[in-house]
Amino acid sequence: MKKLKRSARLVEMTQYLLFRPHTLIPLTTFAERYSSAKSSISEDLVIIKEVFEEEGLGDLHTLAGAAGGVKFTPKMPKEASLSFIQNLCQKLQEPERILPGGYLYMSDIMGQPHYLNEIGKTFASAFANRDIDVIMTVETKGIPLAYATASFMNIPVVIVRRDSQVTEGSAVSINYVSGSDKRIKTMSLARRALKEEAKVLIIDDFMHVGGTIHGMMDLLKEFKGTVQGVGVFMESSEVEEHLVEDYVSLAKLNGVDSKTRKISVDLGNYFH
Amino acid sequence: MKKLKRSARLVEMTQYLLFRPHTLIPLTTFAERYSSAKSSISEDLVIIKEVFEEEGLGDLHTLAGAAGGVKFTPKMPKEASLSFIQNLCQKLQEPERILPGGYLYMSDIMGQPHYLNEIGKTFASAFANRDIDVIMTVETKGIPLAYATASFMNIPVVIVRRDSQVTEGSAVSINYVSGSDKRIKTMSLARRALKEEAKVLIIDDFMHVGGTIHGMMDLLKEFKGTVQGVGVFMESSEVEEHLVEDYVSLAKLNGVDSKTRKISVDLGNYFH
Repeated sequence: MKKLKRSARLVEMTQYLLFRPHTLIPLTTFAERYSSAKSSISEDLVIIKEVFEEEGLGDLHTLAGAAGGVKFTPKMPKEASLSFIQNLCQKLQEPERILPGGYLYMSDIMGQPHYLNEIGKTFASAFANRDIDVIMTVETKGIPLAYATASFMNIPVVIVRRDSQVTEGSAVSINYVSGSDKRIKTMSLARRALKEEAKVLIIDDFMHVGGTIHGMMDLLKEFKGTVQGVGVFMESSEVEEHLVEDYVSLAKLNGVDSKTRKISVDLGNYFH
Repeated sequence: MKKLKRSARLVEMTQYLLFRPHTLIPLTTFAERYSSAKSSISEDLVIIKEVFEEEGLGDLHTLAGAAGGVKFTPKMPKEASLSFIQNLCQKLQEPERILPGGYLYMSDIMGQPHYLNEIGKTFASAFANRDIDVIMTVETKGIPLAYATASFMNIPVVIVRRDSQVTEGSAVSINYVSGSDKRIKTMSLARRALKEEAKVLIIDDFMHVGGTIHGMMDLLKEFKGTVQGVGVFMESSEVEEHLVEDYVSLAKLNGVDSKTRKISVDLGNYFH
């Protein structure tokens, strides 16, 4: 790349860092990329760091020394997440979201990249300091959330299937009891999808009793993996006791009353 | 926001634009945001535009006049997509990817946010000039690709289900013939998931005969929608004739030979 002026370099470095979260970038990479002195690069990074912090985009952490460099960790300030989720709670209480059977329609929200990004950034902030290799989710509705989170954490996603797919090779299957209807169901994960002893973050869209998430935890044991965290977009408060104890929720569904056409959605435990 | 120096403003504007693709941003938004004159903002945009173009990030289009502003359209230069897909083709030919039944394992690649971003950016470039309201895909493996593409196009995703889910309300179901095993299957989409007469881009991971994609097209007719484009990551060349004629593929699977442990993957028609 040709030698750039500071102004162009700042634009270039900003996009370079934003697209490479959780990645240590040696200062020499930038110095060579822009044919600039390391001291100029360091000055640029100070400016970028200030803006990133001011804007609540995340931390820019500089490590000194030969093996040093700079690492961008996306983080969303809690107040920003709070005001975003408060707005979402309002939206989720619109009476036209009530579906037959007292279910709540939220696929439209889960279909919007903009919302998913904010949710993903919030989860990435909530679990930023844990040591995580991979995100696990179960088809279908958890998948977009898992990927949104993964893209801010720069880690891969594995998808647990509700049936064993022939196109995935040998798989490990377990039975679990679905909390909502107490039926026995099956979930499975391809042997090669997950290395042994992986450190895993479980992400899902909704937790009722917690049977599905508990099932994922059981499945994970078969791979000798450890659960480093559980994040659900919405939990149900209609349940006396969840099968899963340690989890982060962003919203809480208190109830859907089909008769009075009232939905009550609160903030989740992340904001307590 | 406090008044910013040009250097900080450039960092700020860069991230602001990158996170808001395909969105017209009035210059007054920036002028007010940074308490700066519109003329300074215009100068900043010239610098950003140059770097974005040089780096192959996309176009920064400025519209003059009272209703004017600036719009960032992410685009990946074809040579960049080409070299990325060529690398991926190499990876996909590793013999250990052969699964029982002659299938090809590629879930690890589809689980990496970095790869998904590049694929999504490529699809977003391929369809950048078409008039598209929404992306449609079918569960399960197409979902991450659909979202990656959607995030660069700033449009929502709807997910067609392989069974009719009670939690989605009334749904439209159709039967279709799966190309690979000639079995009759069902797919369905919630009534409220898609507005009538929507302009749709269909995205999926793999196209064999094209039965699933043809099914989505049939389903779309029930919603009076129109197909504006079809993008598949990989097509199979083992088929004499696809049920779908007009599509963009990024890679092409020529064959998996379980005996000789050879996989042959070529570039797709996007590069012809």
